[in-house]
Amino acid sequence: MSEELTAYARKLALTLVLEGLRAVDPKSLLKSRARVVESKLIVDDHEVNVGNGVYVVAIGKAAGKMAEAAEEILGSRIRAGVATVPRGAPSPRLARITPVAAGHPHPDEGSLEAGKLALRVAEEARRSGCPLLALISGGGSALAEVPVPGVTLEDLRSVNDLLLRSGASITEINTVRKHLSLLKGGRLAAAAYPSPVLALVLSDVVGDKLEVIASGPTVPDPSTYEEALDILKRYNLMDSAPRTVLEVLEKGARGELPETPKPGDETLSKAHALLLGSNLTALKAMDAYAKKLGLNSVVLTSMLQGEAREAAKALAAIALEVKRSSIPVAPPAAVICGGETTVKVRGHGRGGRNQEFALSAALQIEGEGGIAIAAIGSDGIDGPTDAAGAIVDGFTVKKAKRLGLDPRKFLEENNSYEFFNIVGGHIKTGPTGTNVNDFYLAVVIAQEWE
Amino acid sequence: MSEELTAYARKLALTLVLEGLRAVDPKSLLKSRARVVESKLIVDDHEVNVGNGVYVVAIGKAAGKMAEAAEEILGSRIRAGVATVPRGAPSPRLARITPVAAGHPHPDEGSLEAGKLALRVAEEARRSGCPLLALISGGGSALAEVPVPGVTLEDLRSVNDLLLRSGASITEINTVRKHLSLLKGGRLAAAAYPSPVLALVLSDVVGDKLEVIASGPTVPDPSTYEEALDILKRYNLMDSAPRTVLEVLEKGARGELPETPKPGDETLSKAHALLLGSNLTALKAMDAYAKKLGLNSVVLTSMLQGEAREAAKALAAIALEVKRSSIPVAPPAAVICGGETTVKVRGHGRGGRNQEFALSAALQIEGEGGIAIAAIGSDGIDGPTDAAGAIVDGFTVKKAKRLGLDPRKFLEENNSYEFFNIVGGHIKTGPTGTNVNDFYLAVVIAQEWE
Repeated sequence: MSEELTAYARKLALTLVLEGLRAVDPKSLLKSRARVVESKLIVDDHEVNVGNGVYVVAIGKAAGKMAEAAEEILGSRIRAGVATVPRGAPSPRLARITPVAAGHPHPDEGSLEAGKLALRVAEEARRSGCPLLALISGGGSALAEVPVPGVTLEDLRSVNDLLLRSGASITEINTVRKHLSLLKGGRLAAAAYPSPVLALVLSDVVGDKLEVIASGPTVPDPSTYEEALDILKRYNLMDSAPRTVLEVLEKGARGELPETPKPGDETLSKAHALLLGSNLTALKAMDAYAKKLGLNSVVLTSMLQGEAREAAKALAAIALEVKRSSIPVAPPAAVICGGETTVKVRGHGRGGRNQEFALSAALQIEGEGGIAIAAIGSDGIDGPTDAAGAIVDGFTVKKAKRLGLDPRKFLEENNSYEFFNIVGGHIKTGPTGTNVNDFYLAVVIAQEWE
Repeated sequence: MSEELTAYARKLALTLVLEGLRAVDPKSLLKSRARVVESKLIVDDHEVNVGNGVYVVAIGKAAGKMAEAAEEILGSRIRAGVATVPRGAPSPRLARITPVAAGHPHPDEGSLEAGKLALRVAEEARRSGCPLLALISGGGSALAEVPVPGVTLEDLRSVNDLLLRSGASITEINTVRKHLSLLKGGRLAAAAYPSPVLALVLSDVVGDKLEVIASGPTVPDPSTYEEALDILKRYNLMDSAPRTVLEVLEKGARGELPETPKPGDETLSKAHALLLGSNLTALKAMDAYAKKLGLNSVVLTSMLQGEAREAAKALAAIALEVKRSSIPVAPPAAVICGGETTVKVRGHGRGGRNQEFALSAALQIEGEGGIAIAAIGSDGIDGPTDAAGAIVDGFTVKKAKRLGLDPRKFLEENNSYEFFNIVGGHIKTGPTGTNVNDFYLAVVIAQEWE
């Protein structure tokens, strides 16, 4: 009985995860919000005149699908454009916008090409007086880049890598990135000034702050050179960061380099950014679908952060209370969260934050029937692996032990990918073409006495 | 406006915390559940004959208040008894039961005296045929002890200290403790056999498993010598643990020492244990009171575990979503959790898990008006400090920075006590005489636009 309930809980969890992904498909989001009426592109209560044409820059992991939707909506009004495509992701079908394959999470030569092209498109918009439509999504920080003079791609990759491994938050990482870039921190939109810029943004950032998503290429940047330096100090990277990077930040902190455009800056007075979708969009859809399926469902937060294995303990604690006490909701239940955790890498294994989340959750619910917990990156890519995430239940640890494995050791070694490779539980979607952070989901079917 | 709302949120959070403490006062809990009718002590649907007298052993941080309640209920029927009193806590007013001051979290000479007396009382119950009333609460593991032959108090303190600092869970720590003790793991109740034993248990253990609370002196112990050894191995303590301890565990694992009484053991066939109250008792009372005060309140779990600073991020993430999106409940709201976190000690500061929880939460809600987060140990003692916990709000970090402090550094150094000493925010109740784990509470008054 318990095993059947558990299998059912797994099935429901996977169904809900897929519903969450469906709800943040960039194409349907964009087409449901944007339309052209009498030579005007209208999004919500905002409009720009596209009668003489429009330029498109699509940056981020969702750029391909967003660019496809833009071509469907704007057609021949598009004069030129560029869209970043993460390497390995399927090529978008585009007629007017140029796709450029680029690297993630590490920027590569393709990222430089995409960045250069994006700046050139913005400058063409400026010269022609036509508006620039910027389609921004997460991952854009790496997928398109134009480094400031003196800083090389190698330098960027090096500091990027150090920051990603340091445990720094995405906001902190982007503060450094913005001050090494001619694209980020509002500089893309400033390049199109005084032509109007309309940015439609799919958020992959906890809290959905527009200046953080893809390092905010179209919005004012409140952060400073000093803060960027402070972050390198905070994570003890002053000795390991490239000398050229430190030189730029220190020069900037002394006022010898121009700052990124700050709030109120003239060059951004014609730029408007609207949030198109976010993690919460997906969580609400999962919640609605769970209720339709007869589950008592609750969304807790789209802002879960912290060390992946520890965040998992919080969700597991709530799932266990659901089973034991019908608190905060009675089984059959779904407890839905989202956010973006971090992993402080200690071991030499292979994995991702969502697979670590799932593995840690498995240890917490060991032996408990009727519970399934899933963690998945909405972009379909969890760490440097081909999995989007993983799903576990109360028998996952038991199964591993039967195979002679010590799940704790896999967690210690940051080897979650290999764990699920052997024990089963990977969720593999391939690149989804969207990117709104991670989903964490517990489905609890059984009660304590079952 | 924002500061007023924040002050109000703090006030509400403190009010709710006090209500939680009130709800788990051992004296009122015991007196509401137990009564004597026609020479029978009746608790729920369980009864024991106290016509010829009864013996009382009260072990744990709540022993004083529980023993006082027992004297009020049973009066002169009590033949003899012992109650542990944590050093520094107020002396209980007892006429028939002997109070013994003892150490916590490290057992001391008083713990040995209390342990010896407890075993002697149980043996008197056995000889007289009178029942033994065992009043068990958390902290009992340290407050009363009779080590197995060959193991000294110093050895126990040493292994106890190593385990507490290792990050091992309380269940794991107690598995080791039980196999070094003549009191724990059912051995106290076995000493009274064949006289009846009624144990009333106040839980300080996540999940309320009776065999874990105070190391389960009256209930079967499913754990083994092998598991105790495995735990020392898991936390790399095989080299640092005392040789005498390893000898006992290895001898036991080879079957050369008697195991603790296992489920189904004859010597525990006359023993019954009932849960008197738990963390959830308090959380439910806080929830009911919050609703009475007009707050939208939700209890999430009584089983929160993991590293204190990380668990705090989960509660903060939910509080921030409440403020931003009215999810999972709309402001004015209370989000109520409980459990027991751990602290992996890295620095040389002074603090406790609840003060670390609060400090970490403060960093997460920096700058957010109308939010207060409190964390408190229900026993009134957080770590080796005179504080029960702390309360923070969106201005706590700002205030610290104005004073020239770096809150992150205090957290790094495990120096949360000193932080709150300077910045303010300590909750000091003194020893409360109860012990049902920790309360974590967020009160959110403001919405995003305020």
